[in-house]
Amino acid sequence: MNVLADLNTPCLLLDESKMRVNQNRMIKQVKSRSCSLRPHLKTLKSVSAARYVLGGTDCPITVSTLKEAQEFGRAGFKDILYAVAITAQKLDHAVSLRREGIDLKVLIDSEEMANAIASKSNKTGEAIPAFIEIDVDGHRAGISIDESDRLIDIARRLEQGGKLHGVMAHAGESYNLSDTKLICESALNEATKAVKMANVLRAAGFECHHVSVGSTPTALARIEVQGVTEIRAGVYLFFDLVQAGVGVCKKENIALSVLTTVNGWNSKKRQIFIDAGWMALSRDRGTANQATDQYFGIVCDEAGNIIPDLVVIETNQEHGIITSRPNLEQKMEQETPHLLIGTRLRILPNHACATAAQHETYHVLNAEGKLIENWSRFGGW
Amino acid sequence: MNVLADLNTPCLLLDESKMRVNQNRMIKQVKSRSCSLRPHLKTLKSVSAARYVLGGTDCPITVSTLKEAQEFGRAGFKDILYAVAITAQKLDHAVSLRREGIDLKVLIDSEEMANAIASKSNKTGEAIPAFIEIDVDGHRAGISIDESDRLIDIARRLEQGGKLHGVMAHAGESYNLSDTKLICESALNEATKAVKMANVLRAAGFECHHVSVGSTPTALARIEVQGVTEIRAGVYLFFDLVQAGVGVCKKENIALSVLTTVNGWNSKKRQIFIDAGWMALSRDRGTANQATDQYFGIVCDEAGNIIPDLVVIETNQEHGIITSRPNLEQKMEQETPHLLIGTRLRILPNHACATAAQHETYHVLNAEGKLIENWSRFGGW
Repeated sequence: MNVLADLNTPCLLLDESKMRVNQNRMIKQVKSRSCSLRPHLKTLKSVSAARYVLGGTDCPITVSTLKEAQEFGRAGFKDILYAVAITAQKLDHAVSLRREGIDLKVLIDSEEMANAIASKSNKTGEAIPAFIEIDVDGHRAGISIDESDRLIDIARRLEQGGKLHGVMAHAGESYNLSDTKLICESALNEATKAVKMANVLRAAGFECHHVSVGSTPTALARIEVQGVTEIRAGVYLFFDLVQAGVGVCKKENIALSVLTTVNGWNSKKRQIFIDAGWMALSRDRGTANQATDQYFGIVCDEAGNIIPDLVVIETNQEHGIITSRPNLEQKMEQETPHLLIGTRLRILPNHACATAAQHETYHVLNAEGKLIENWSRFGGW
Repeated sequence: MNVLADLNTPCLLLDESKMRVNQNRMIKQVKSRSCSLRPHLKTLKSVSAARYVLGGTDCPITVSTLKEAQEFGRAGFKDILYAVAITAQKLDHAVSLRREGIDLKVLIDSEEMANAIASKSNKTGEAIPAFIEIDVDGHRAGISIDESDRLIDIARRLEQGGKLHGVMAHAGESYNLSDTKLICESALNEATKAVKMANVLRAAGFECHHVSVGSTPTALARIEVQGVTEIRAGVYLFFDLVQAGVGVCKKENIALSVLTTVNGWNSKKRQIFIDAGWMALSRDRGTANQATDQYFGIVCDEAGNIIPDLVVIETNQEHGIITSRPNLEQKMEQETPHLLIGTRLRILPNHACATAAQHETYHVLNAEGKLIENWSRFGGW
């Protein structure tokens, strides 16, 4: 195993001790809500990382692609929810994964796909289980709370061959909040609407055993709603600057960073250049509309200690530019320090899912900052 | 070979006939300037694609990572410029590639790295050739035009063991222009300053055979400056919406697109959901500050014909949201058409380099829209 100083830059670092703290916090929280946890592994995309942090493969999981379902399913995870509305063309792949022994559930929110799943189930003799998505906050997809008749119609169509597994809600708007009270309200809203729609289905004669809710902010909210059976969340495993801006973690909880090397200095503009551009950091600017804009990420020393007020102000493909944080209120900028070429830094990401997706490997550090493992990631669909 | 209709979505499509037209245009242009062409392959990141469009491996190339240098070098490309300022830690890798027979040149713009290259060259007996970067427009890195003494000092330090290969300039600010006259001025500025600094070195007694300039906009400008020896450009091979906004191509020249499938419809908000989110499109918003904001890309039918006024207005990891283009002037929006679930679309990218980087494979179409090959891409550093 390399030591940290030998790693080629840019590369992705993962602090396993921070990740474990984040996971333990979520486990405790989910227990306090008497639910089971179905972590979303679109953030990790790594069998080794998932096995490590979940203590094996005996844990229900959520995925965002059938490729993830296949990779995690073949690695031993059996109870998998593919939480993006499926299309007809993907059903053969879903059926083939189920025939491998992976208990894959799909997601629908339309009459067309309810029909398609019933039809495919009848043709293949494989009753495909599906969650129906409920729209709780107008964020994106799902059946609205005022569409009870439509919900029942979709369930009826689905059960002509497929199998209703439950309802699923995702309070996507919670990512735009930063006030604990409002996040609690969002979580309450998510849970009560999901339970209400499950009851609509039950009153119409359907079995609806599973009520799945969650997003990282709402999963961590201290609420209690009877009837929710499971909680989904993904980015909490790493956390990131967006979640710090939402207020559900501290910057010190962020387990993921990009190791980079200073490769230039512009003395006139007092700009530090680094070898991590958007190819290593991603183009995500998720903090741009938060109270504190973190630009393309904040800067730490090689050991992971935050250097106050330095940000990655701009990125090109393989160049990052670091300056002092623009201080719009005082119309002046603190002077950017001159860091020597060769200085190694770490960048904390705006959005862990997006930054991790730019890399093929996690270089895993323990609590002492020592490299202990490399975990490979996968991509694709 | 699959037919287009069988491709799993989202995936990356490459129209080889459009790419060839783009390449032929650049070849003609570079000939008219009596220069050689050193295409930047950070856009392609594919040996198959490079061999195809460059007609073999007998062509000087530019790369943005040592991984690219290694992949293209081992595939037969020998004359390679690594056009990002190198750091000391990367020199061993550079030397080992040179020892494999790859004529790799590196880039520097500091006294420190001139010293480091001289020292590494002496230690290894491998005289590392380097370009010195000239800053022509304050875009990023390089030696300013008013730093002649510093330039000479750097060359002197470099030649204590390494080898001065030439000067390199990149008019990065040209990407922010949209007026042909201003782009011509930018190209003239880039070329004249690079030549001037080469002459500074010659007057000080150095051999400076190579004067390398370019960016896609300035490479395509109709100018003539004596003394430029080679032109670099990359994104012209595919073009994209940013370049269309700059005015150096038409949307119809864009060779790259993402194939996607409609997987939902929100009738209240009249939003179309697709299975291409930022994981497939990238988070690049390069057109945000152009005269026409293209959001996360514009929408075509499956055959590649642009559907007027539809844009990908928002992206999540595996979800894209399509609406009619917001019309800020008229304070009204055209009604978004209801596209059925299962409808297949293509999205034209803001930034081809960023979108391509999200994929592992090019699905290559000929002029008739038939799938003819799959070309694999690589990533990493």
